[in-house]
Amino acid sequence: MLPKEKNIQAEASPERSVSDIGKELDELQRAMADLGGSLLVIVEGWESSGKGYLITRLRREIDPRYYHVRLFDEPTESEKIYPMEKRFWEELPKKGAIAIFDRSYYSELFEKRSKNGLDETLTFWNAQENMWRKDRMCIIKLFLDIREDTQEKNIRELEKDPNREFLVSAMDKKQNEKYAAYRKHMNDVLEKSNSPCAPWHIVSMEDRDAGTKHAMELCVSLLKDHLEFLREDAELCRPITEIIAPETEKNPPQIKTLDLSKTITDEEYDARLQPLQHRVRDLAFELFTKNRPMIFLFEGTDAAGKGGSIKRLTKHIDPRSYRIHTVAAPTKEELSYHYMHRFVTLLPSDSQIKIFDRSWYGRVLVERIEGFASPAQWQRAYDEINALEAAWQDEGIRIVKFYLSIDKDEQKARFEARESDPRKVYKLTDEDWRNREKFEAYDEAADEMFRRTSTINAPWNLIPANSKRYARIQVLEKIVEEMEAHVK
Amino acid sequence: MLPKEKNIQAEASPERSVSDIGKELDELQRAMADLGGSLLVIVEGWESSGKGYLITRLRREIDPRYYHVRLFDEPTESEKIYPMEKRFWEELPKKGAIAIFDRSYYSELFEKRSKNGLDETLTFWNAQENMWRKDRMCIIKLFLDIREDTQEKNIRELEKDPNREFLVSAMDKKQNEKYAAYRKHMNDVLEKSNSPCAPWHIVSMEDRDAGTKHAMELCVSLLKDHLEFLREDAELCRPITEIIAPETEKNPPQIKTLDLSKTITDEEYDARLQPLQHRVRDLAFELFTKNRPMIFLFEGTDAAGKGGSIKRLTKHIDPRSYRIHTVAAPTKEELSYHYMHRFVTLLPSDSQIKIFDRSWYGRVLVERIEGFASPAQWQRAYDEINALEAAWQDEGIRIVKFYLSIDKDEQKARFEARESDPRKVYKLTDEDWRNREKFEAYDEAADEMFRRTSTINAPWNLIPANSKRYARIQVLEKIVEEMEAHVK
Repeated sequence: MLPKEKNIQAEASPERSVSDIGKELDELQRAMADLGGSLLVIVEGWESSGKGYLITRLRREIDPRYYHVRLFDEPTESEKIYPMEKRFWEELPKKGAIAIFDRSYYSELFEKRSKNGLDETLTFWNAQENMWRKDRMCIIKLFLDIREDTQEKNIRELEKDPNREFLVSAMDKKQNEKYAAYRKHMNDVLEKSNSPCAPWHIVSMEDRDAGTKHAMELCVSLLKDHLEFLREDAELCRPITEIIAPETEKNPPQIKTLDLSKTITDEEYDARLQPLQHRVRDLAFELFTKNRPMIFLFEGTDAAGKGGSIKRLTKHIDPRSYRIHTVAAPTKEELSYHYMHRFVTLLPSDSQIKIFDRSWYGRVLVERIEGFASPAQWQRAYDEINALEAAWQDEGIRIVKFYLSIDKDEQKARFEARESDPRKVYKLTDEDWRNREKFEAYDEAADEMFRRTSTINAPWNLIPANSKRYARIQVLEKIVEEMEAHVK
Repeated sequence: MLPKEKNIQAEASPERSVSDIGKELDELQRAMADLGGSLLVIVEGWESSGKGYLITRLRREIDPRYYHVRLFDEPTESEKIYPMEKRFWEELPKKGAIAIFDRSYYSELFEKRSKNGLDETLTFWNAQENMWRKDRMCIIKLFLDIREDTQEKNIRELEKDPNREFLVSAMDKKQNEKYAAYRKHMNDVLEKSNSPCAPWHIVSMEDRDAGTKHAMELCVSLLKDHLEFLREDAELCRPITEIIAPETEKNPPQIKTLDLSKTITDEEYDARLQPLQHRVRDLAFELFTKNRPMIFLFEGTDAAGKGGSIKRLTKHIDPRSYRIHTVAAPTKEELSYHYMHRFVTLLPSDSQIKIFDRSWYGRVLVERIEGFASPAQWQRAYDEINALEAAWQDEGIRIVKFYLSIDKDEQKARFEARESDPRKVYKLTDEDWRNREKFEAYDEAADEMFRRTSTINAPWNLIPANSKRYARIQVLEKIVEEMEAHVK
């Protein structure tokens, strides 16, 4: 099976007990934490091959503060209404911690024995694993292998035990009946997802204790290698499949050529505002009933009027069908995950509109400029974001991105107006004044962001916002257009 | 309806617009945040009475960073496997924020028109509301009232609108057909849950705009009153029903009379350990298949061996059926909620065992001694914890509580052993040495905790742990006994 499996030399140490190996793993966890790494162990394999047996021993010596085990059954009805990757992202290990996945995003692919969409899905997960790996995560994928007759024997034994009989499912028997066909298909999935970043390791579970020991030695050995990588801060490796970056626009919008003088008369504003708001309300109902999720995302200069635009946009929408997420600096807890973690877990359900007041683009704006992300980190973020947005679109989410831009004089006037209005002074912080000193750097970062992430399917809408009213109408018109296209 | 409704004088201000009132609410939110308060608005009422209409306007002017709207439909399958209160606790507002519940824990009671268990459930929610209120939460409960013919008219109008027709459910029609019977039952529920801490406010929605305005004026007025309470730090009020504290043991265990000399021979330990562990494994499977959730909770002196006991306990349990939660000091995020929030959200599903290494009892131990909780806070915690544990037991969760106790000399020896073992030195922190200076205070707090919370149904098991092996066997034996009782 899997001829191209890398030949790992697990230390030959017949005298070491499972408990000794477990204790070494426990110690390695602390070394890993010091290096800001994390560990994801994926346990896949044949039904009744001993996944539970292995995991029980694998986690036994690890400090319970720093690991968790998650069983991934078929998605529940409530999980199904979200993008498929959400429930997996939610259980990823934070920095310093270990997550053990009992079954995973591969299970469905192993089970359904279909080539339909297989390559696309594997490319997607390969890209995700690559992202996680670059974020210092060690990914160990174990596949527990047994022969047909062993599986049959295991199933029979489970069925005889009144306490464990419930562990035998229809799937166990189906696999055993069509063992050869499954084996062929599984090999196919294994080969296609056997990336250098996260290769599969086949563990024979003919002898459960020997298999368990082998798997645990593998974990120790691979984690040690990973710690070396982390110490050297090495470029960890390239994905088996390059991320196919979605095509970007030939002529993305640019702040440096933006006409900020555009405006609108009060009469025109008054005449157009309410009909647009009512149209948005009706379209929101329609999207809701048709299960068409959307993301409206707002970035922009400080004081450009993002909040005001969102307020006009949502004025008549039924509050049950949308939710606004105002994105602030990440908390300490959020910083212990991949920077996209807090956003993937907020993706809309299949009938929701999610409005982001600031977003994941903070990675290439504020985090870039303030140095919270290293150059390597923010530079690779463009492709990562493009790939993720493309995946979300494939899952049916339409993404509409706005950047509201004002010039430096207009910003100054607005800051001063806020300062003198007791109702609005709370909106202005010292940080706003500090950011203002980097006004040009923010504009330049935005222009680069447009060039790199204004994709054909999710282009940036750069809105001149010196006139608040002009900007609001522009936003509403664009949103009506996008909602109409999405509802069809 | 509801003759004993408190006669709230909402400011008579016909000239104020809904937008003006909304803006005042927005300002009050900031004042509330400064005072550490929070606001929960519960919107209940007849089907098709205009809940969505009201909520759309109620939240319109509020800064989206500080409120969220949550619709509570029938619980999903994944929600049903958890204690019923979990999904509501998860959506409570944090300090400084506003949560709007569109339907709530009252909905089921209004709908099912049954007196079965009604009083018990209302007493439970009354106690919860009282707890939240004492934690500085303002609770505004609105009931939107319409006449039978108005409801019929509203339903017909919705049905005519292709975008909103989906809002009409079978329940709408059923209510309308049996309007009089529902009205009688609803009145009953309203009266019984009309506590002084969180009274109901009946809002006529015959005229939707007038009703909306009235409801919003009410919110402003009640929140203002609440801010006065907060400023005065007043004892907010007593619950309509006193918490019926579960009966406590006549002779609770006490550290001051504990015989710490108990021990066990190595031979006896070796002979008894494994059979107990295997028995625990089998019982865990049985509990899992029978959907019998349990909580094993460990408190104790620092270095008393909680971790070691948990490790022996879980050695053979299938990791998919239990989860260990190691409780550390609350994060900043956790501190912005009621102290029980982070625990209620971790309650076991109906087939889970949850193991807590430290727990909610931190409130009356470390938080009491270190001054993180005020005397009023930790003193009321005993009754609150008793009431919550009793509720969890009513929902089928068996709770087993252990306190592992060692004396001061033994602790010193263990600290020193940790210091000199490179594998264990990470377990010892400066804080451990600091806590040691308050050794006697911790023992006294523990003794008071036993007196106040060793209830008949969830008594404390005080384990002499100077001999680690003796303690481990004691814990395992007690757990086997409790699992056997629960599995029957």
